[in-house]
Amino acid sequence: MSESLATKELTGEEVAELHREYVMQSWHKQGEPVMPVKSAKGIYVYDYDGNKYADMSSLLVCSNLGHELPEIVDAIKDQASKMCFMAPAYASEPKSKLAKMIVDLAGNDFYQRVFFTNGGADSNENAIKMARMVTGRQKIFSCYRSYHGSTLGASFASGDWRRFATEAGGAAPSFVHFMNPNMYEDGFNRGEDDEKVTALYLKRLEDQLIYENPDDVAAILMESIVGANGVILPPKGYMEGVRALCDKYGILMICDEVMAGWCRTGKMFAWQNFDIKPDIFTFAKGVTCGYVPLGGVVVSKRISDYFTDHVLQCGLTYSGHTLACAAGVAAVNYYVEHDIAGHVKEMEGILKPFLEEMEAKHKCVGESRCIGLFSAMTIVKNKETRELMSPYHTANPVMGKIMGALKDKGFLTFGRETNVNICPPLTITAEELKAELPKVDEVLTWVDENFCD
Amino acid sequence: MSESLATKELTGEEVAELHREYVMQSWHKQGEPVMPVKSAKGIYVYDYDGNKYADMSSLLVCSNLGHELPEIVDAIKDQASKMCFMAPAYASEPKSKLAKMIVDLAGNDFYQRVFFTNGGADSNENAIKMARMVTGRQKIFSCYRSYHGSTLGASFASGDWRRFATEAGGAAPSFVHFMNPNMYEDGFNRGEDDEKVTALYLKRLEDQLIYENPDDVAAILMESIVGANGVILPPKGYMEGVRALCDKYGILMICDEVMAGWCRTGKMFAWQNFDIKPDIFTFAKGVTCGYVPLGGVVVSKRISDYFTDHVLQCGLTYSGHTLACAAGVAAVNYYVEHDIAGHVKEMEGILKPFLEEMEAKHKCVGESRCIGLFSAMTIVKNKETRELMSPYHTANPVMGKIMGALKDKGFLTFGRETNVNICPPLTITAEELKAELPKVDEVLTWVDENFCD
Ligand SMILES: Cc1ncc(COP(=O)(O)O)c(C=O)c1O
Ligand SMILES: Cc1ncc(COP(=O)(O)O)c(C=O)c1O
Repeated sequence: MSESLATKELTGEEVAELHREYVMQSWHKQGEPVMPVKSAKGIYVYDYDGNKYADMSSLLVCSNLGHELPEIVDAIKDQASKMCFMAPAYASEPKSKLAKMIVDLAGNDFYQRVFFTNGGADSNENAIKMARMVTGRQKIFSCYRSYHGSTLGASFASGDWRRFATEAGGAAPSFVHFMNPNMYEDGFNRGEDDEKVTALYLKRLEDQLIYENPDDVAAILMESIVGANGVILPPKGYMEGVRALCDKYGILMICDEVMAGWCRTGKMFAWQNFDIKPDIFTFAKGVTCGYVPLGGVVVSKRISDYFTDHVLQCGLTYSGHTLACAAGVAAVNYYVEHDIAGHVKEMEGILKPFLEEMEAKHKCVGESRCIGLFSAMTIVKNKETRELMSPYHTANPVMGKIMGALKDKGFLTFGRETNVNICPPLTITAEELKAELPKVDEVLTWVDENFCD
Repeated sequence: MSESLATKELTGEEVAELHREYVMQSWHKQGEPVMPVKSAKGIYVYDYDGNKYADMSSLLVCSNLGHELPEIVDAIKDQASKMCFMAPAYASEPKSKLAKMIVDLAGNDFYQRVFFTNGGADSNENAIKMARMVTGRQKIFSCYRSYHGSTLGASFASGDWRRFATEAGGAAPSFVHFMNPNMYEDGFNRGEDDEKVTALYLKRLEDQLIYENPDDVAAILMESIVGANGVILPPKGYMEGVRALCDKYGILMICDEVMAGWCRTGKMFAWQNFDIKPDIFTFAKGVTCGYVPLGGVVVSKRISDYFTDHVLQCGLTYSGHTLACAAGVAAVNYYVEHDIAGHVKEMEGILKPFLEEMEAKHKCVGESRCIGLFSAMTIVKNKETRELMSPYHTANPVMGKIMGALKDKGFLTFGRETNVNICPPLTITAEELKAELPKVDEVLTWVDENFCD
């Protein structure tokens, strides 16, 4: 039974049916319809019926260099022929190389070491453990408007409602959430109110730190730019202000670069858009573009020094996985060699004005936000009152319909809450981008006409 | 800098030096000496000086089919050429196949679905979350003598002292630990006292359940056979008794098969050595033999049915990773096609008598335990008094010296606490096994002479 299935070529229908019957589907009820994907190449994904879709979200904002990039595929095949895996206790060439490459890109004057994990959640888990060990303090501050993963620690730190199910068993103590600004939803105007909002939210944060006793706070963990909750660009000066509060109270700053890192914003790391250096930052997704699971934690010299005298009480079987690191070496090398950051800035020159045009033109677009190829639009029911199409933790079916209408046009993306994200592979060409964007315009017109006040 | 490093071939010394300088090493102080590994094939690992070592622990008990098995390597290369990764929301052939293959092997009369993760820790994290959702109860019972991983939830559930650093930030409520039997260390004799020990420990467990209110207990999580803490074989009837307690109180039984699964014990899953069916079991390691990171959770029809009406509040970017599942299909197919379970039983016929001989012959071997190719010896200072060489949570340097002496003979393995594990790749031949075991005898003689009373 198993034997024959292993080697048999399945039809798309069989693939979908086995999935519905045997795969436990994340964030869904089980047994629902599913689209079987046959192959993917560049920015395109193909189903079994010969339909082609543009992957305008880089799947879950991970396929930064598109699908089946020969340089990464070849590196995987090459390493697979040599040595797929060697245990964490041994040095291997891909792990050694990738660690140095990442530290050099982050800045080897300040950063020193990389701890490798399997994905985003466990990178944050380990960053939290390290921060507590180094500071001897317990509390972890993190933002309500955030997502850091779904293992217990990463989920306790996350702010959005995906945390609730984890907390049903009782949350661990010492996780404290603070409200980070979302200028549009909080009733402010970007470019006009930045200074005011920054001052307001930093004051609130400092007050909360004081009431929680800053001497008990190990770290402030935040996404460099909040991703899944709608590419929320911080007001000018905010991130620098958080860094200053960390310095004032001896708190470590941890930036989560899982979604925003690896050239997504036009910089190698998203924190480089601000005048800050986090003490620790975490990554995953773009480091291998998802080709092989890999995540990690980058630490400053100061943190690293602490662990030359103290045992690092962290570990996992696949830390520094050989095949994953080989894919990482190839991907990171590609970002650098092909100046992907520069290309992203050029493409931003197409995407950003387009989104501004949508914002000006459509009743349903409350605000658009774009940095590099990291963008989202806030969909509203009423532009005057800023009434959101799908207020926080509701699920207005209109949002699903928007995704469906885009998909029908061959445009695949995802959104959460009241946002539509557009985050294509960073290798997208100007032609490809220009071919896809009009589909968004069409769907937004349909939303204006059918769902807005 | 980075560019040239990516493509440059490094010497062993350079690999080791970059590791010492830039890699954050799990469970260690940083910057310590490290052995660079150049390649691995079958049961052997090779360094850069041409030295060959037998991998007698399957690295971290994961390389069940040895290194660079052509069938898995080819499957990885083949899938890499087609599609490395497709997001969890889409069906893909390797994921659909592997889910069905696993459910069929577990028994499709009772089991229904697989939720895929990246490794062992997050498989347990998700099992815990599911158990709480399904039962509406909060408490998770788990064994002191256990290890389930190092992310917060898996670490809170773990029993050994690797949990302490995680708990420094304050443990989450609702994790309760109970003492599971270790017959030798508890002063009993295997084969004579099983019935007594089973009754004693089940009574203790039931008492603890009652004092914790069994109606609040979602699940009892346990390794099917405790691995990293010394291949602790449960006394006869113990696992069946735990299952009966679960049934009596409406508690789910979760078996952790991360280390013991995939033919390690001579059965496909280690729980099949007992007359039980866990409601949920978790796996990792052997499913791909570590070639690509993969883990997962297998659930019964009853659990699966719950989530056809309720949203599964679990997710991770790489759930059902395409390349990982392709490696899994190849590995699982190999276990079945080559009757690895049968081969393991044959090899047990060599390993087990050898260990019994060691136990009879050497002053330093208090007890040996062996099931399939899963084995450990308890090293003692005094055989009469059963004084352990390295009592719990101490680190007698003698244990490190034993590992070092074995390594000097080209025999790589690991041990924790006072145990020496021998868990070679399951594909080891009789000749290979017979060639390696005399090295153990020699080292034990040296221990007898130098470190025992
Ligand atoms: C900012 C951020 N952090 C962490 C994670 C969790 O990563 P993973 O799904 O690999 O666990 C995500 C996933 O989307 C993320 O966007
Ligand atoms: C029984 C058991 N469960 C869970 C784990 C954790 O697995 P991972 O290291 O992949 O997180 C291990 C690791 O050794 C294990 O032996």
